[in-house]
Amino acid sequence: MAFTIYLSGEIHTNWRDQIKQGITESQLDITILSPVTDHDSSDNVGTTVLGVEQDNFWKDHKSAKINALRTNNYISRSDIVIIKFGDKYKQWNAAYDAGLANGLGIPTIIMHNQDLTHPLKEVDAAAQAVVETPEQVVEILKYIMQ
Amino acid sequence: MAFTIYLSGEIHTNWRDQIKQGITESQLDITILSPVTDHDSSDNVGTTVLGVEQDNFWKDHKSAKINALRTNNYISRSDIVIIKFGDKYKQWNAAYDAGLANGLGIPTIIMHNQDLTHPLKEVDAAAQAVVETPEQVVEILKYIMQ
Amino acid sequence: MAFTIYLSGEIHTNWRDQIKQGITESQLDITILSPVTDHDSSDNVGTTVLGVEQDNFWKDHKSAKINALRTNNYISRSDIVIIKFGDKYKQWNAAYDAGLANGLGIPTIIMHNQDLTHPLKEVDAAAQAVVETPEQVVEILKYIMQ
Amino acid sequence: MAFTIYLSGEIHTNWRDQIKQGITESQLDITILSPVTDHDSSDNVGTTVLGVEQDNFWKDHKSAKINALRTNNYISRSDIVIIKFGDKYKQWNAAYDAGLANGLGIPTIIMHNQDLTHPLKEVDAAAQAVVETPEQVVEILKYIMQ
Amino acid sequence: MAFTIYLSGEIHTNWRDQIKQGITESQLDITILSPVTDHDSSDNVGTTVLGVEQDNFWKDHKSAKINALRTNNYISRSDIVIIKFGDKYKQWNAAYDAGLANGLGIPTIIMHNQDLTHPLKEVDAAAQAVVETPEQVVEILKYIMQ
Amino acid sequence: MAFTIYLSGEIHTNWRDQIKQGITESQLDITILSPVTDHDSSDNVGTTVLGVEQDNFWKDHKSAKINALRTNNYISRSDIVIIKFGDKYKQWNAAYDAGLANGLGIPTIIMHNQDLTHPLKEVDAAAQAVVETPEQVVEILKYIMQ
Amino acid sequence: MAFTIYLSGEIHTNWRDQIKQGITESQLDITILSPVTDHDSSDNVGTTVLGVEQDNFWKDHKSAKINALRTNNYISRSDIVIIKFGDKYKQWNAAYDAGLANGLGIPTIIMHNQDLTHPLKEVDAAAQAVVETPEQVVEILKYIMQ
Amino acid sequence: MAFTIYLSGEIHTNWRDQIKQGITESQLDITILSPVTDHDSSDNVGTTVLGVEQDNFWKDHKSAKINALRTNNYISRSDIVIIKFGDKYKQWNAAYDAGLANGLGIPTIIMHNQDLTHPLKEVDAAAQAVVETPEQVVEILKYIMQ
Repeated sequence: MAFTIYLSGEIHTNWRDQIKQGITESQLDITILSPVTDHDSSDNVGTTVLGVEQDNFWKDHKSAKINALRTNNYISRSDIVIIKFGDKYKQWNAAYDAGLANGLGIPTIIMHNQDLTHPLKEVDAAAQAVVETPEQVVEILKYIMQ
Repeated sequence: MAFTIYLSGEIHTNWRDQIKQGITESQLDITILSPVTDHDSSDNVGTTVLGVEQDNFWKDHKSAKINALRTNNYISRSDIVIIKFGDKYKQWNAAYDAGLANGLGIPTIIMHNQDLTHPLKEVDAAAQAVVETPEQVVEILKYIMQ
Repeated sequence: MAFTIYLSGEIHTNWRDQIKQGITESQLDITILSPVTDHDSSDNVGTTVLGVEQDNFWKDHKSAKINALRTNNYISRSDIVIIKFGDKYKQWNAAYDAGLANGLGIPTIIMHNQDLTHPLKEVDAAAQAVVETPEQVVEILKYIMQ
Repeated sequence: MAFTIYLSGEIHTNWRDQIKQGITESQLDITILSPVTDHDSSDNVGTTVLGVEQDNFWKDHKSAKINALRTNNYISRSDIVIIKFGDKYKQWNAAYDAGLANGLGIPTIIMHNQDLTHPLKEVDAAAQAVVETPEQVVEILKYIMQ
Repeated sequence: MAFTIYLSGEIHTNWRDQIKQGITESQLDITILSPVTDHDSSDNVGTTVLGVEQDNFWKDHKSAKINALRTNNYISRSDIVIIKFGDKYKQWNAAYDAGLANGLGIPTIIMHNQDLTHPLKEVDAAAQAVVETPEQVVEILKYIMQ
Repeated sequence: MAFTIYLSGEIHTNWRDQIKQGITESQLDITILSPVTDHDSSDNVGTTVLGVEQDNFWKDHKSAKINALRTNNYISRSDIVIIKFGDKYKQWNAAYDAGLANGLGIPTIIMHNQDLTHPLKEVDAAAQAVVETPEQVVEILKYIMQ
Repeated sequence: MAFTIYLSGEIHTNWRDQIKQGITESQLDITILSPVTDHDSSDNVGTTVLGVEQDNFWKDHKSAKINALRTNNYISRSDIVIIKFGDKYKQWNAAYDAGLANGLGIPTIIMHNQDLTHPLKEVDAAAQAVVETPEQVVEILKYIMQ
Repeated sequence: MAFTIYLSGEIHTNWRDQIKQGITESQLDITILSPVTDHDSSDNVGTTVLGVEQDNFWKDHKSAKINALRTNNYISRSDIVIIKFGDKYKQWNAAYDAGLANGLGIPTIIMHNQDLTHPLKEVDAAAQAVVETPEQVVEILKYIMQ
């Protein structure tokens, strides 16, 4: 049975590549979906395509809505949403994706270091698994797809 | 038509009281729901009721799941979920609540200062209104319930 | 069995008052919901509450989203959505409400003169009844609530 | 990830062809759905197939219901519904489609000139993007499918 | 816990009155809903309120759609739909109501004599109970509401 | 866009074959689903597979439930449910299927002679088209799939 | 905010009374629902009301379906389903209720002694809290309703 | 029409293989899904992948949640869930799966010996068929897919 997973969260480390590599090596029949991970492109798509804004709020607004056409669609098509939290940036969009997935009835796997356990307790409590490394994600996928 | 609202997010300022006061003064027929805002009680309820844990992960886990019995229930019964972001702490549970509400088809109003516009752009983009003060929330409620 | 109805569309004639009067005279147990029908207030609420905009698009955007907090909520709580089309203005919001109601599984009654039959054929085809006068709406309500 | 889009609204300009050409040139994996855009065929299908009617209301009614077998089905299968408003005709069916899509939880992109901003404010406020040209639609699709 | 039941089907015997009497005598907290059981009124409401039709098909069509405003609404609000089949008339609307209730996830109790068992096997197979008398319906209601 | 249709109702005339032939001749990409139309097999499957019953009610019950594993599944997968009523037998299962389809949000096309208009008015009123012949069904399918 | 809870499972100990007493003493605004806990009445209702059966399978079948009119209705109206497992009997209906509640999106609290942890691991894993005593249930309810 | 079935329950007899063989021999187009049936692997996956636990409750918890990523996903994708109860072990997870499937609107076939009829009466009453042997399952599948 093929699976579709969505990789949400942190975009400045290579955790997505590590999961992709593990999936390829394990020859798992998984479609891997991600947000646009080019930071500048993601921030500017609204004004680039729809015209400049003087107010940064509307610049962000237009970009975020276009990005949501992709991210919400991908999340709603996924069997599992996997979300990585790191120690940089606010990452509220990652926590938003966790809430959205659970609101849609889609299970989550949350990845983060132990020092983030307390602030992520509500997100973790709604997840099916909490992991620290991409290898653990791959191990879970290998197990459930055996 | 009576409304039910849920006030999510920041617990160390008195924004909830300000909204309650405005609602009372305007005599609006609104049921106001909130999470448990006693920080210690919220953190410890799991171990207090269900027994101690040596591992902090499970301590947090048990508390967060009991809290979710209240918060998820209240969110799902609300007409509008109002979420306040401040400049302290990670506040991932607030962003999670925004995602959960939208996943359940419940509209949101987001409250924060302008300096948080960029990191909150995805959360704001899915909201019906973005405000800076409790007074603006009350004004919106007065308008839609006139 | 009490009913809740939402009266959408035309705001510059007194059709809502005629329906309300008929309901009162017939002593029907009906909660009547409407959008804010003060045109200026409805157009300006966004900038009045949330701050001025230089670009009219965003002025309209902010007002429309606040109005949707009321209209979408009221439509989703209604047993029947009654929508009046007249010969003035574009009235795309009225047609939008018809689509939204049907998308949510809520039946509609459409009111318009016969000369609008052709452009409203898709809206009419999805309705449970097409009427020309407020009196007919009241007759239908009296019949189904007898 | 393949996408399915539905192109609703204006049928007397070639905006659908422009979007199709852009999609073809960009080699995007998109299934493009449309209503029957032959005006006479669409207006007359009810009486042609099911028998003549003396009353125009029922002629329109039968045609509109058969067309809805296609349009509602296509909208419900789409990832994004793209709706073009022009300056001719009432176009209430286009606004109806926007409401229906949102009622079903399907995101919309709205296309129109700036002079229609005010009457379309409710429709625009519920959309993920508001554009003026087919090229902008193609740019959005290219971006989200990169 | 209060219950709401809908009594569908046969309108020329007094089975509804017998159930109502049993509920009253047993002092059960049940809201009892029914279609309009005045046969002429039900058949003619469409043309009486909305204007005459030359074609009987449209006369029936208009009346049936107005009646559906009541019946579908009542069925969707019920905890149990109770449907009586007799030996007269086609009673396709009764079977339709059974299908509609089950499609909406609402349980049914079917009432009929044993000689109708074979033609009603699909309807019975989807029901929670198949009874022969109004007394049995009342007994079931008394039992589940004890 | 491929369509899936379910052909419910009358099993003793060849209307299904006529529709299949028309679809084949028109080279429409349609998956055609039907109930088991072998009358004896359908009536006896319960006792044949699960063991004999002395009481005909349970014999019918077991068969009807196994048949529902097919019919309900096929209806829920269909884009359109097409239901034929004839002048023989009770055909309550056909009316049940119409209700079930509409309860699940799936549109129906109803086929019957004009002399059945009055008893089928509720079923017809919930349909997108009412036809008399298989050729008309094929014409509708050709039109909506052009 | 009033809560509704359903108490499923073990019927030969007084755990329901202990929870009721705790709720009363704490003056919590909770509606408490339960299955019929009179064992004989529950087992025999089918044949008592609907007529005797020679085959025990059908006797059980008729009773279980009537009981489901109550239990499924109560579960679907509850905010929380609380399920007690003991060491006697098979209790498959209790585990079924846990699955049903979760399938309907309703959270569960599971009560059992520690020696049942392993066989209940799937049921526990889907619950918001796992407790050993009625007092703990009351403590959780007091906490979330403070 | 291809079918997908999920085989839940007993893992220490070869009933799954018998059903698979019957499906293969009958050349039915069925995708067969199962839980991980290696008992040790299933019990230990949580600690193997996510790290050891001192408390058996959390060991079971972590494993059960990872297993649910597979089982809940497979159940939600199935057309029919087939569940085997035997005379060993508690098998609460099997009853849970039955409840979950029905809560999600997916029909069930239950397999067990006659001596388990009474304790399984609630589970059986919600099923479309109750069988004793794998051969009967295959016969039902052959019949509904003919």
